Amino acid sequence: MQAGKNMATCVTDIPRPDTDVIARYQGAEVATVHEAQGRKGLLADYMRPIFKPAKIAGPAVTCEVAPGDNWMIHVAVEQCQPGDVLVVKPTSPSVDGFFGDLLATSLKARGVLGLIIEGGVRDTATLTNMQFPVWSKAVFAQGCVKETLANVNTPIICAGAYICPGDMIVADEDGVVVVKRQETKDVITKVEQRIANEEAKRIRFENGELGLDIYNMRERLAAKGLVYVKYEDQ
Amino acid sequence: MQAGKNMATCVTDIPRPDTDVIARYQGAEVATVHEAQGRKGLLADYMRPIFKPAKIAGPAVTCEVAPGDNWMIHVAVEQCQPGDVLVVKPTSPSVDGFFGDLLATSLKARGVLGLIIEGGVRDTATLTNMQFPVWSKAVFAQGCVKETLANVNTPIICAGAYICPGDMIVADEDGVVVVKRQETKDVITKVEQRIANEEAKRIRFENGELGLDIYNMRERLAAKGLVYVKYEDQ
Amino acid sequence: MQAGKNMATCVTDIPRPDTDVIARYQGAEVATVHEAQGRKGLLADYMRPIFKPAKIAGPAVTCEVAPGDNWMIHVAVEQCQPGDVLVVKPTSPSVDGFFGDLLATSLKARGVLGLIIEGGVRDTATLTNMQFPVWSKAVFAQGCVKETLANVNTPIICAGAYICPGDMIVADEDGVVVVKRQETKDVITKVEQRIANEEAKRIRFENGELGLDIYNMRERLAAKGLVYVKYEDQ
Amino acid sequence: MQAGKNMATCVTDIPRPDTDVIARYQGAEVATVHEAQGRKGLLADYMRPIFKPAKIAGPAVTCEVAPGDNWMIHVAVEQCQPGDVLVVKPTSPSVDGFFGDLLATSLKARGVLGLIIEGGVRDTATLTNMQFPVWSKAVFAQGCVKETLANVNTPIICAGAYICPGDMIVADEDGVVVVKRQETKDVITKVEQRIANEEAKRIRFENGELGLDIYNMRERLAAKGLVYVKYEDQ
Amino acid sequence: MQAGKNMATCVTDIPRPDTDVIARYQGAEVATVHEAQGRKGLLADYMRPIFKPAKIAGPAVTCEVAPGDNWMIHVAVEQCQPGDVLVVKPTSPSVDGFFGDLLATSLKARGVLGLIIEGGVRDTATLTNMQFPVWSKAVFAQGCVKETLANVNTPIICAGAYICPGDMIVADEDGVVVVKRQETKDVITKVEQRIANEEAKRIRFENGELGLDIYNMRERLAAKGLVYVKYEDQ
Amino acid sequence: MQAGKNMATCVTDIPRPDTDVIARYQGAEVATVHEAQGRKGLLADYMRPIFKPAKIAGPAVTCEVAPGDNWMIHVAVEQCQPGDVLVVKPTSPSVDGFFGDLLATSLKARGVLGLIIEGGVRDTATLTNMQFPVWSKAVFAQGCVKETLANVNTPIICAGAYICPGDMIVADEDGVVVVKRQETKDVITKVEQRIANEEAKRIRFENGELGLDIYNMRERLAAKGLVYVKYEDQ
Repeated sequence: MQAGKNMATCVTDIPRPDTDVIARYQGAEVATVHEAQGRKGLLADYMRPIFKPAKIAGPAVTCEVAPGDNWMIHVAVEQCQPGDVLVVKPTSPSVDGFFGDLLATSLKARGVLGLIIEGGVRDTATLTNMQFPVWSKAVFAQGCVKETLANVNTPIICAGAYICPGDMIVADEDGVVVVKRQETKDVITKVEQRIANEEAKRIRFENGELGLDIYNMRERLAAKGLVYVKYEDQ
Repeated sequence: MQAGKNMATCVTDIPRPDTDVIARYQGAEVATVHEAQGRKGLLADYMRPIFKPAKIAGPAVTCEVAPGDNWMIHVAVEQCQPGDVLVVKPTSPSVDGFFGDLLATSLKARGVLGLIIEGGVRDTATLTNMQFPVWSKAVFAQGCVKETLANVNTPIICAGAYICPGDMIVADEDGVVVVKRQETKDVITKVEQRIANEEAKRIRFENGELGLDIYNMRERLAAKGLVYVKYEDQ
Repeated sequence: MQAGKNMATCVTDIPRPDTDVIARYQGAEVATVHEAQGRKGLLADYMRPIFKPAKIAGPAVTCEVAPGDNWMIHVAVEQCQPGDVLVVKPTSPSVDGFFGDLLATSLKARGVLGLIIEGGVRDTATLTNMQFPVWSKAVFAQGCVKETLANVNTPIICAGAYICPGDMIVADEDGVVVVKRQETKDVITKVEQRIANEEAKRIRFENGELGLDIYNMRERLAAKGLVYVKYEDQ
Repeated sequence: MQAGKNMATCVTDIPRPDTDVIARYQGAEVATVHEAQGRKGLLADYMRPIFKPAKIAGPAVTCEVAPGDNWMIHVAVEQCQPGDVLVVKPTSPSVDGFFGDLLATSLKARGVLGLIIEGGVRDTATLTNMQFPVWSKAVFAQGCVKETLANVNTPIICAGAYICPGDMIVADEDGVVVVKRQETKDVITKVEQRIANEEAKRIRFENGELGLDIYNMRERLAAKGLVYVKYEDQ
Repeated sequence: MQAGKNMATCVTDIPRPDTDVIARYQGAEVATVHEAQGRKGLLADYMRPIFKPAKIAGPAVTCEVAPGDNWMIHVAVEQCQPGDVLVVKPTSPSVDGFFGDLLATSLKARGVLGLIIEGGVRDTATLTNMQFPVWSKAVFAQGCVKETLANVNTPIICAGAYICPGDMIVADEDGVVVVKRQETKDVITKVEQRIANEEAKRIRFENGELGLDIYNMRERLAAKGLVYVKYEDQ
Repeated sequence: MQAGKNMATCVTDIPRPDTDVIARYQGAEVATVHEAQGRKGLLADYMRPIFKPAKIAGPAVTCEVAPGDNWMIHVAVEQCQPGDVLVVKPTSPSVDGFFGDLLATSLKARGVLGLIIEGGVRDTATLTNMQFPVWSKAVFAQGCVKETLANVNTPIICAGAYICPGDMIVADEDGVVVVKRQETKDVITKVEQRIANEEAKRIRFENGELGLDIYNMRERLAAKGLVYVKYEDQ
């Protein structure tokens, strides 16, 4: 790569969902949000929380980093507001420890809720004590340099999901899901409907009713060709 | 696959080990059972519990699912009795979230002890609160459809182990092991002997005796060619 | 391999760092030690503790094992002193359960702090109850034979790191790092300097100062070509 | 494991499918056989041929090996007849080089068609020159000892498939599939029907007909809810 | 998922780059295109060609599939024009054999250049004979059903890259890269400049000049702190 | 990392094995060398050649690189002599394309035999045409920066093997093995003995003799407890 000007961009003053919409996401779970928006937006299953329980929901500040280089995280921190979630993506696969307790202290001082990183994280014992949640691909103490620029607050692909700055991030023990900023209001309404709907079903399940009956599956199963046979008669 | 009748079978009224035999397994550990039956029956090491501590032992109800399709789990639930363990195997590799809190509620209402699934599971925070244990290949919120038939209570290969309905499943923090139904009585007797035998050895180890002496290894080591050299004399 | 004499060596009376140097490592973290010695010595990120919190620091007793064969661990136990850390490496990749509660009882009776193994471990529930920490590549109940010799207290490569007997091992929730015995004194001095230095920075971060300012990054970022653009002006 | 008698079994005089049935499999492909028998019997996708093209079909001689130990392959060789396929499974996961050019020379001298091994293989350049095909999980030069017994010609689980001695193995560039000995005749008949059926379809596809029309999919797609929208009208 | 109308969309009449622009890409290599557009657009390194040599460049027709279900590929085929590249993405991770020789015959009859699939492919021997190139995550014979809808010609994330219908796909032995349709003209101009520039450098390298001198690196290396030491003087 | 002097070292004038010893290695295979030196020195099984056949043997020039940064390879090139093998190790795990056709042209101009890299390589089609062999962990077109120093010709751990500058590297289709420079003469003598010894055995195997008899295994198998049972008598 040749030296030169304007090799990376930090976008400021990004839009975020309305405050009341963000508030309604605080009770939502990843699986429910994923279902409510038509089964999209999940990050890959290797994105795991460093401690449990852990659950956050907030707008994304997005940040690229070069492999083995955490310089741009410092740039991204300044773009974070209270209630935000920082989302970091290496420009090529890396499990280096891009993030540790000092950066977490900085983010916590700004009211940031947590970190999503398709890379490594370190100082996890301290992060646990601080109760600063991180969803990462790896835990690894490998240190980083500060040499190479990358973009902040531009669209990124993190763990297989397309994430724009200001999109809503929901993360819990099941993993991480993203909701497009423009769809946050519609999706949370559907989420709330699902929660109500599931609650009614849960009571029926607790009372011993079967999904076969609750969902009227028996006829369709038979039509497709399911046959019941006694073990002795096989 | 062409449409047609009788494309899948659900076997009912499967045999299970005797109640008193099942009871004797409640104290047994996976490693001990594996050793006692001649080092066979272990499921692969990627089968991990979603919370710890967790320990169950009960007869298997087996269930195939198509990838991305959890329809047959609803069929399998009806075949479960109190004390059973549900064992689920996708017909091709998949980490989709085949199982969540509603199905767990249904299984718990029937007295099922836990789930073994060579796939993904979701709602893990709720499952932890419910204390419904699951051993899975992945935690992933990805939703499923209900379109494709598969077999229930036929022999399956789950995580590299051959499991028939009614076989005994033992699962703990080390993983999962299966004991053939016909061998459950013999195996638990050997398990109980091993536990007694290990207890005696544990006391000797606690008192500072070495395995080299407890197992009389020194002579055989020397015969094979082990040589001791002082660091300074290398 | 042909039968024959002198096929493996157990080195005795290995040197260890000075007692006071070992003592100074008890407060150090893996990430800090790794940084302080110039970012080297980390074991691979797949080496994970079986329970948390867990933190140890002590001199290495090194042990090779054949795949599926834990015989040499019994030889290695005798070479361990109070405060040591046992480090085990299979001679080819293996996740077998080379180590369980009886060996842990033996090591604990000798005052050994914990185990590092690029393989599998079992009886993890009991090890957790005993609070005997293990960093391993896998948890797997697979049993081992005792047939094949290998070396004890010779240099090994464990999870990508070169480890000599008597080198200092530090392990915590982030993973494992090794410090060459000859460098232990210099490195711990640098570690202590870093801890002091980080503490001052932590206070500045807690007060809301940015890394951009603490580390004077703004000018260099601009010189490299970082440009700030308002979201609306893109 | 304690020493003792009768620790492993080699089964002799295994049954094989009829000669004419075996002959009919010589033209069949893995994908077709898999489909014809109801989509079962595939070995995992990590079983890859060491050279291409490669294609074999013959009855299985099954062989367990201890990890890092290829002793039992020598026992299994004696059980092989011309036209057989040797199938080897380590008793725990291992990529060691259990098999090389001398064993291949021995098998070739007996008329064995090839090797399936859920482990490693070595001397692959020589095996390629000999045109002795191997499907393996890894290529790795790691040497083996000859210390531990295991079973020959008992049922095994190899790469996720249940294989009995005398079952039919078909392997090509797509991977490996097993057909139960008792079902070999029925399955090959269905295979031959599929081949004829596919040939007719191939001609229609070559002529530019669409699967949508050949399989009458348009109506069902619309009924399920597929909508066509012009790019400009989105 | 509840039944209902309009559950998936097939977008028709997608835009493509200008014919002359597409023509200029025919000589370009993946690595050069990736560099020329600022090091973005690469698909993950696990996307490998089923045979070599293989090299294609053409506009993308994008297609989602449910795991274990290749129904929508039939829908996508109809949207393909001569010179296109079909790009298929399962809605959750899957290595099933979504594609085989009949679909390849259909695509070839339409003049499609090849397939990119973040899943499995089968009939690879026949595909090789047909010289129909495929870049896939796996080779696996596992068959598929035709039950579940998904979108055709909507934006997808395939192997970590964001791909819109009509974007340019370049694939060779190094892997796969995507160029946004709107940037195809600018990028190919830069590609052509790079090729010319590299040719000049190649001649200097062939003549024995060092990169240290061609790129004037020596001074900057020294400034950063590189020191040369003779082996004997260490 | 703070700026500072002397942050990395390039060692010059490294020793190499005697020319006649190097010459004797040209006929040796990886598996044979590995066996002859007591089954040590193998690099991990994920180190695969980019084309076949490929076989080289020569002294190592060692080179560290930062992840995503290939600067130091240019420094290493100058240290290479005709007949050398360049061995590259990222300081943390990375599959970036550190090496392509221009660097290969430079190495080839200097008479270097090939590259071993625990990372990615690109331009593999051109490298194949040039017949410049590379053993790598990945093929990936991801570009690199030139910003961070690392050491040249210091000991490294590459793919799990400890390699010093001047050690002998042998690579073929089975993978890569290293022989310590000080042991090269002894090892090649043992290699030549093994080749002679294997040749005699190969003839016996070709003549249909069994390993059971050639190695006199029958008695020891029986003593350990192997039992032969007819299939019908089980």
